[in-house]
Amino acid sequence: MAKVVQNIQRADTAVIAGLAEAGVATVHEAQGRTGCLHAYMRPIYAGARVAGSAVTISAPPGDNWMLHVAIEQLQEGDILVLAPTSPCDNGYFGDLLATSAMARGCRGVVLDAGVRDVRDLTEMGLPVWAKAISAQGTVKETLGSVNVPVVCAGQAVKPGDVIVADDDGVCVVPREEATAVLAAAQRRMAGEEARRKRLASGELGLDIYDMRPRLAEKGLIYE
Amino acid sequence: MAKVVQNIQRADTAVIAGLAEAGVATVHEAQGRTGCLHAYMRPIYAGARVAGSAVTISAPPGDNWMLHVAIEQLQEGDILVLAPTSPCDNGYFGDLLATSAMARGCRGVVLDAGVRDVRDLTEMGLPVWAKAISAQGTVKETLGSVNVPVVCAGQAVKPGDVIVADDDGVCVVPREEATAVLAAAQRRMAGEEARRKRLASGELGLDIYDMRPRLAEKGLIYE
Amino acid sequence: MAKVVQNIQRADTAVIAGLAEAGVATVHEAQGRTGCLHAYMRPIYAGARVAGSAVTISAPPGDNWMLHVAIEQLQEGDILVLAPTSPCDNGYFGDLLATSAMARGCRGVVLDAGVRDVRDLTEMGLPVWAKAISAQGTVKETLGSVNVPVVCAGQAVKPGDVIVADDDGVCVVPREEATAVLAAAQRRMAGEEARRKRLASGELGLDIYDMRPRLAEKGLIYE
Amino acid sequence: MAKVVQNIQRADTAVIAGLAEAGVATVHEAQGRTGCLHAYMRPIYAGARVAGSAVTISAPPGDNWMLHVAIEQLQEGDILVLAPTSPCDNGYFGDLLATSAMARGCRGVVLDAGVRDVRDLTEMGLPVWAKAISAQGTVKETLGSVNVPVVCAGQAVKPGDVIVADDDGVCVVPREEATAVLAAAQRRMAGEEARRKRLASGELGLDIYDMRPRLAEKGLIYE
Amino acid sequence: MAKVVQNIQRADTAVIAGLAEAGVATVHEAQGRTGCLHAYMRPIYAGARVAGSAVTISAPPGDNWMLHVAIEQLQEGDILVLAPTSPCDNGYFGDLLATSAMARGCRGVVLDAGVRDVRDLTEMGLPVWAKAISAQGTVKETLGSVNVPVVCAGQAVKPGDVIVADDDGVCVVPREEATAVLAAAQRRMAGEEARRKRLASGELGLDIYDMRPRLAEKGLIYE
Amino acid sequence: MAKVVQNIQRADTAVIAGLAEAGVATVHEAQGRTGCLHAYMRPIYAGARVAGSAVTISAPPGDNWMLHVAIEQLQEGDILVLAPTSPCDNGYFGDLLATSAMARGCRGVVLDAGVRDVRDLTEMGLPVWAKAISAQGTVKETLGSVNVPVVCAGQAVKPGDVIVADDDGVCVVPREEATAVLAAAQRRMAGEEARRKRLASGELGLDIYDMRPRLAEKGLIYE
Repeated sequence: MAKVVQNIQRADTAVIAGLAEAGVATVHEAQGRTGCLHAYMRPIYAGARVAGSAVTISAPPGDNWMLHVAIEQLQEGDILVLAPTSPCDNGYFGDLLATSAMARGCRGVVLDAGVRDVRDLTEMGLPVWAKAISAQGTVKETLGSVNVPVVCAGQAVKPGDVIVADDDGVCVVPREEATAVLAAAQRRMAGEEARRKRLASGELGLDIYDMRPRLAEKGLIYE
Repeated sequence: MAKVVQNIQRADTAVIAGLAEAGVATVHEAQGRTGCLHAYMRPIYAGARVAGSAVTISAPPGDNWMLHVAIEQLQEGDILVLAPTSPCDNGYFGDLLATSAMARGCRGVVLDAGVRDVRDLTEMGLPVWAKAISAQGTVKETLGSVNVPVVCAGQAVKPGDVIVADDDGVCVVPREEATAVLAAAQRRMAGEEARRKRLASGELGLDIYDMRPRLAEKGLIYE
Repeated sequence: MAKVVQNIQRADTAVIAGLAEAGVATVHEAQGRTGCLHAYMRPIYAGARVAGSAVTISAPPGDNWMLHVAIEQLQEGDILVLAPTSPCDNGYFGDLLATSAMARGCRGVVLDAGVRDVRDLTEMGLPVWAKAISAQGTVKETLGSVNVPVVCAGQAVKPGDVIVADDDGVCVVPREEATAVLAAAQRRMAGEEARRKRLASGELGLDIYDMRPRLAEKGLIYE
Repeated sequence: MAKVVQNIQRADTAVIAGLAEAGVATVHEAQGRTGCLHAYMRPIYAGARVAGSAVTISAPPGDNWMLHVAIEQLQEGDILVLAPTSPCDNGYFGDLLATSAMARGCRGVVLDAGVRDVRDLTEMGLPVWAKAISAQGTVKETLGSVNVPVVCAGQAVKPGDVIVADDDGVCVVPREEATAVLAAAQRRMAGEEARRKRLASGELGLDIYDMRPRLAEKGLIYE
Repeated sequence: MAKVVQNIQRADTAVIAGLAEAGVATVHEAQGRTGCLHAYMRPIYAGARVAGSAVTISAPPGDNWMLHVAIEQLQEGDILVLAPTSPCDNGYFGDLLATSAMARGCRGVVLDAGVRDVRDLTEMGLPVWAKAISAQGTVKETLGSVNVPVVCAGQAVKPGDVIVADDDGVCVVPREEATAVLAAAQRRMAGEEARRKRLASGELGLDIYDMRPRLAEKGLIYE
Repeated sequence: MAKVVQNIQRADTAVIAGLAEAGVATVHEAQGRTGCLHAYMRPIYAGARVAGSAVTISAPPGDNWMLHVAIEQLQEGDILVLAPTSPCDNGYFGDLLATSAMARGCRGVVLDAGVRDVRDLTEMGLPVWAKAISAQGTVKETLGSVNVPVVCAGQAVKPGDVIVADDDGVCVVPREEATAVLAAAQRRMAGEEARRKRLASGELGLDIYDMRPRLAEKGLIYE
């Protein structure tokens, strides 16, 4: 049954901003090494680092009709997350949809599918993470759903979950855990700073983390 | 039977220039969403947008001999299009061949295979779209053909067809349809400009394209 | 049996520098078209061209513990080469390990696996060639080995072999052949310069390499 | 956090039996063309058609420890469903685990990973659907979880959901929808029987489904 | 423009029968090592060896409507050849369509896409070569074309071309060359028989084909 | 430099026979979970289980000339192991070569490439493990080497190493370790038998292997 869920809950904007600052690798570690989408999800240009609330789209292969429906559901700072119902690398999203999405507050787009007009999107400054860059067009014939749970590039994403994306890829944080994950990420970053200095001075991780006894116990032999 | 067809017909240069300006996504739509090569065909550097007449090459796997033969057939503004007779990602094309091809007027290269010396090619400003970047060399032992119909990255390409290529990938336009496709592309671009402005102002595609009645008729439910 | 081999032989530093200057494509040709790692090994940023002695790592899937062990074995100018014991695209290497490796003289990293913190690594100027960019983290539970022969991205690599890497990918030169390969590469480059000029002037490879008689003998037909 | 959920709800056994009889393609259609795992999930032998309640396993790459934990949670007729936390084709499951699982009532196994000892498993009659056949072994070092929601081969699976699997692949039916889906599947099968007879007699789908007017309206041209 | 070409030319039935008997590998060699579809095209069961005239279908991703249209165009002994307009592994074809196609004389099916109900199709004895086995269903919303030139799994196929398929895969023979290719195939088979006997007796190909002088001339060294 | 090494050392025939009996999974575990070729190496028919000494072949892409050279080097019970110098799925091996190889004592074939005439090979009873089934033919133009070290499907294989292959895939055992690996494999099998009985009776691996304390220590929680 095709449906649009209009009122979704979102995480706190300060929490979202904090997760963006932490970045994908740190956030992923902070929530127990979970939430990374498949490594084939790549940004169309380098340097973007964003976080936002997921407006999810379940769409048939080769049909981008539901993107128009989803754009109406956007709020400032949201991220569109599209999952086709079977594998497809068609170009679901291009410059006209980007113009519309940006006018409605869209901060980024995540497509387990293709994207096109990448030069325009780069100039417009709308970051997109996608499985493929493809000019192959789509039709508008078959319904899908907006703001339902989806599986996107191997991860379950619920509407309102926080999407974090940067040059390392894309990570999803369940909305109800966002505050706790941010706290864990910030603790992690604080600890890393001190270790980075020691490592930069030439001290070894073997010593900083006291790994030698455990390596020996497991049976590592030095020749 | 290995052969070189020496006299091929080409599209009008003004038409070719117009198709370059329109770009891959628009041209692909203008000809009924056909002609896109596989999405794995990627440019070696961003920002190039070219169109030219295809000088086609059918080559054995791991053998780039026919590229030398094809370069002699180039005219100003042509694009080399190489299809191996079975899948191969060897580096068929590098800086020496590029020097030769550019001296003969080559405007771009499309390889359903690998390319190498990509830093040199980037500095030389010869755009290449390829399946892979690979230093793996090739031999010169087995004949192939030049200017015969080939299938390149999933699309049939005839010699003299117009190749359009940019950051979105590669599209082929049959030579005899080039003028009509350009006209359709230009109509499409004209229409897009007005829609872009409306979308940029926040108006929705749902309303501009009058999608709401059809969505309701198909059974879309808003919750 | 998990082990660390501490004293490995390395090639002469001048030879290594010469191989870096020659680059991957030339070196690969100079040693008889061998040594190229799979084309899926891509640099995280464009423009790096390095050579160094391989410090090899055999690591379990999803476990980067041995990287800490390997870093202690680095000498100035070495290149870390990691091969998982079964295919894995997890992010084995990120900014903290990079800080440590650079402090110990590491010149580059080659991973038949994933890398993360690519923006940081780019800013730090540590070039990495990898199969994937992935934030997915790893554990430190299972031993592997350091400085043992490995197969990395389809090529056998022994500790101390010379790794050459640039925008075209990665090539391995057996340590004991490095001097001879460099000599062959330099001969090759000398010869190429003259040919490049002739090709740039519009002369054809067909004539420079005297290919026409052999093409005719093999049966190539011009129509 | 690693955990084992011990008491999960299961669908009615008669409903499960009915879904097995209907088979993957029919069940998938009956629930609105949803629930199919990726097509790379293939049975190790032809001819099995099963359904059962999912006992889910989230496991690290290259580590099959949690399978031992999961087997204790099996009830008669259950199906083990394993999803690695990052892509991995190691052989997580072989004849010893199969012996144990069958002794505890296991009816089938679904692995978004590899399986081994396939000749033994075939002789034992335990059907397995997997991404790969691989003898590559695993360790038992890192915890995962049992009976938590997972994403397996592109589909979200909750513990207790009904897994249907046959030569066409694997489909998941949410437990709470199993009864309704079975009813829809049975209606669908009833309707198909009549159509099959008409089609077998040479009558065309174009006429049985009254497609001609709609084809004409969409613009299909007969030449 | 979507169209159905109703009157296509077919090769002679005796020629088609001869090509079936020769099989894919021989036919492919006989026409100069051309015509093989990608190796990912696999039969759903072993042992079938067929040839027939191609009734081609160009279909959108995830939409199998045109199969119904194509079945009306079948004549006794034809083979359906479906190419999606962009990559798609949905199950376009199952037991109901098979029932209809067989009633109209269909001898085999070639899909650069997915197939389902493979157990039923095996029992019915309708051989299908496909890219995937997938229960994922399709819609009937968007037009395609029947009996137009297509590219299927990397090969150009025109309506009426002869399709040869067996356990080695699928090969296409241009209709106008079918008679000549059969003659070449038969010559090839005649020659092979004698060579097979000599090889079976332990004589070496090195001697039968007089390869030793040429190997020596190329520089092969025996140690 | 292309060469044929004529006198290679082989492992003891009784050891080879013992390794065949143990099978791929057991042998792989017995040598410390090493030696498995990539999981894409699949047998052309089910049920074969062989071991033999590797006669290795390094061949150019699309060129099977060296197979004729290698067949002369076969001794009773050997296994041909072919690795192309760059990825290639052409059909390097078919029924004529099989006739010749069997006449010279060949027990099996391992190709990191394609195989054809699979129905004939199955009837002849020559088991082949390959990356692809493909009728695509090859040329005989460029030299390679026989009985040199190669990397085949991700594993280093030296001439004379023992190849073990069955329905689970292919494993390589270094010749000089074959006796020790067999002993370890036999110990492993002896231990497995007792465990299999206990597992079959319903006893859990959790108890047999005393896993519960360690699971608790690592923090596994039962809910």
